[in-house]
Amino acid sequence: MKEAIRTDVLIVGAGPVGLFAVFELGLLDLKCHLIDILDRPGGQCTELYPEKPIYDIPAWPVISGQELVDRLMEQIRPFEPQFTFNRMVAGLERLPEGGFRATTDEGEVFEAKVVVIAAGGGSFQPKRPPIPGIEAYEGKSVFYAVRRMEDFRGEDLLIVGGGDSALDWTLNLQPLAHRLTLVHRRAEFRAAPDSVNRMLALKEAGKLDFRIGQVKALEGEDGILRGAVVKGPEGDFEVACTRLLPFFGLTMKLGPIADWGLNLDENLIPVDTERFETSQPGIFAIGDINHYPGKLKLILSGFHEAALMAQAAKRIVHPHEKVVFQYTTSSTSLQRKLGVTR
Amino acid sequence: MKEAIRTDVLIVGAGPVGLFAVFELGLLDLKCHLIDILDRPGGQCTELYPEKPIYDIPAWPVISGQELVDRLMEQIRPFEPQFTFNRMVAGLERLPEGGFRATTDEGEVFEAKVVVIAAGGGSFQPKRPPIPGIEAYEGKSVFYAVRRMEDFRGEDLLIVGGGDSALDWTLNLQPLAHRLTLVHRRAEFRAAPDSVNRMLALKEAGKLDFRIGQVKALEGEDGILRGAVVKGPEGDFEVACTRLLPFFGLTMKLGPIADWGLNLDENLIPVDTERFETSQPGIFAIGDINHYPGKLKLILSGFHEAALMAQAAKRIVHPHEKVVFQYTTSSTSLQRKLGVTR
Repeated sequence: MKEAIRTDVLIVGAGPVGLFAVFELGLLDLKCHLIDILDRPGGQCTELYPEKPIYDIPAWPVISGQELVDRLMEQIRPFEPQFTFNRMVAGLERLPEGGFRATTDEGEVFEAKVVVIAAGGGSFQPKRPPIPGIEAYEGKSVFYAVRRMEDFRGEDLLIVGGGDSALDWTLNLQPLAHRLTLVHRRAEFRAAPDSVNRMLALKEAGKLDFRIGQVKALEGEDGILRGAVVKGPEGDFEVACTRLLPFFGLTMKLGPIADWGLNLDENLIPVDTERFETSQPGIFAIGDINHYPGKLKLILSGFHEAALMAQAAKRIVHPHEKVVFQYTTSSTSLQRKLGVTR
Repeated sequence: MKEAIRTDVLIVGAGPVGLFAVFELGLLDLKCHLIDILDRPGGQCTELYPEKPIYDIPAWPVISGQELVDRLMEQIRPFEPQFTFNRMVAGLERLPEGGFRATTDEGEVFEAKVVVIAAGGGSFQPKRPPIPGIEAYEGKSVFYAVRRMEDFRGEDLLIVGGGDSALDWTLNLQPLAHRLTLVHRRAEFRAAPDSVNRMLALKEAGKLDFRIGQVKALEGEDGILRGAVVKGPEGDFEVACTRLLPFFGLTMKLGPIADWGLNLDENLIPVDTERFETSQPGIFAIGDINHYPGKLKLILSGFHEAALMAQAAKRIVHPHEKVVFQYTTSSTSLQRKLGVTR
């Protein structure tokens, strides 16, 4: 067993809510280590819609997923959070002397007084369409998310799907693409009517192609895509393409969290609204993964949950310390922690 | 009786939480009218510390009170909120046909389906020091808050008080002032030790004066201050000054809200954490004025409370409409309301 990494609070999930938890815990002198299955901070925001505008972050009339995460990273920097990326917490056990031992899928060991689950919808994976041999193209010619629109400039794009993601990326990438074909298995969409109308108008104007059908085979070699064979209502046809973007939705998997002995309710973790603690004392759940009466899966609600959780976590980590509630605007001691005053 | 102004939601208090409530209610097609005792939006943020940095607004590593309010005003603009300033809601009664009638201290009448109390600490007033005739100087030479630091440049300042406000403004205004004297009734302060040390260092360096005593009389005429007489431990002395800034704290008065038939708990309004509704159905309370287990008086908590309240308010105003929870990132219909898409 590797030597244990010790921290006050282990945060499972480095999305916006997990990141902001570092801030609230940091104000109370608690050190945090975050583990995420992705290769960078930001969770869904940076994985699924880094360039998409978000309009409901308070005091940000508009902010992209990536900028939101960048700002949060800047805000928590004074507290020097530690990150372990590309890892899942595979096992979690309670230590006899109090606190927890967590083990990742790669065998790292963490020991923490408090565990905060901020894992959003769990560890999520795009649904892979049933096309033989598609794995060989993934990451080279087949992409399940658009991280940088520029990467698709000048390419022949084949977008597959009929939901909001397929339609949104069709509309967003059409101006950049050399050619764009949208394929969906039927003429009806599960997307905003306005987006569908705009796509159809672009088709009328000859700026993109829309075909009904299902991709059944890919052509190319060494991961370099040349085209796709589509099974249409009147027989097979070919679409020349250098990039394939299938939007078949995401599968969210709760993963090993299901085995941690928490009460679960349809893959959500019930918590109280005073401490946001799970059925297991010392394990908290904040953000999209928790549930309580009135719960809305809003980032701003996760921020609130992080603040209240931090007060409870403080009392567990430093049970004999008196917690005085202070404001960053007026407390020199908090400002010193933030590095903005001496 | 004046003709009633009708709105879906009447919001009492136009601080940051009342402002953000307009956004959450607006996404659900509810129109808002806000009433505030101050002469501008922003509540305490703009009244007490417009230029002071706030560090704990999520994704804003630092933001001033004024900028926070400016950003919120920009964010809610698409929903065209209506404002009535310089007014207190003096009376509130339930209408037989449902909804409420509110009357201001100047006799305006509002009718709304839902009332949201976002009144912070109530209507607040700075404590006036017991100096005879001080009223005549208020707003001309005597100020209880610093709205624009520039207004004090080149003046002879007398700051009175021993708390954080007195010390903070002493440190902030000293570089701008022609001369600055701090007077406090004793040598001990109720302020951050670091601020006290910095003030004493400036005194040592001859950059400001600190005297022990209590102001007993003002000298000047027509509101134009010339000096103050201070009673010190060894007798009276005079301080020449053109501006007096007494920081004796604020009195928060709940005001007429106390008479609206709500259950109160030490001038706070108990609410549930699912809807943030008071003991009176249809009257909600969000932000610093409410209370529930775990409550922290944080602006970010008020934002969360506003979001959950809005869902409940929607069901009251439009009881037969099905509420579908949508995200601003993906919903074209929400984006249309925000004016960012057609």
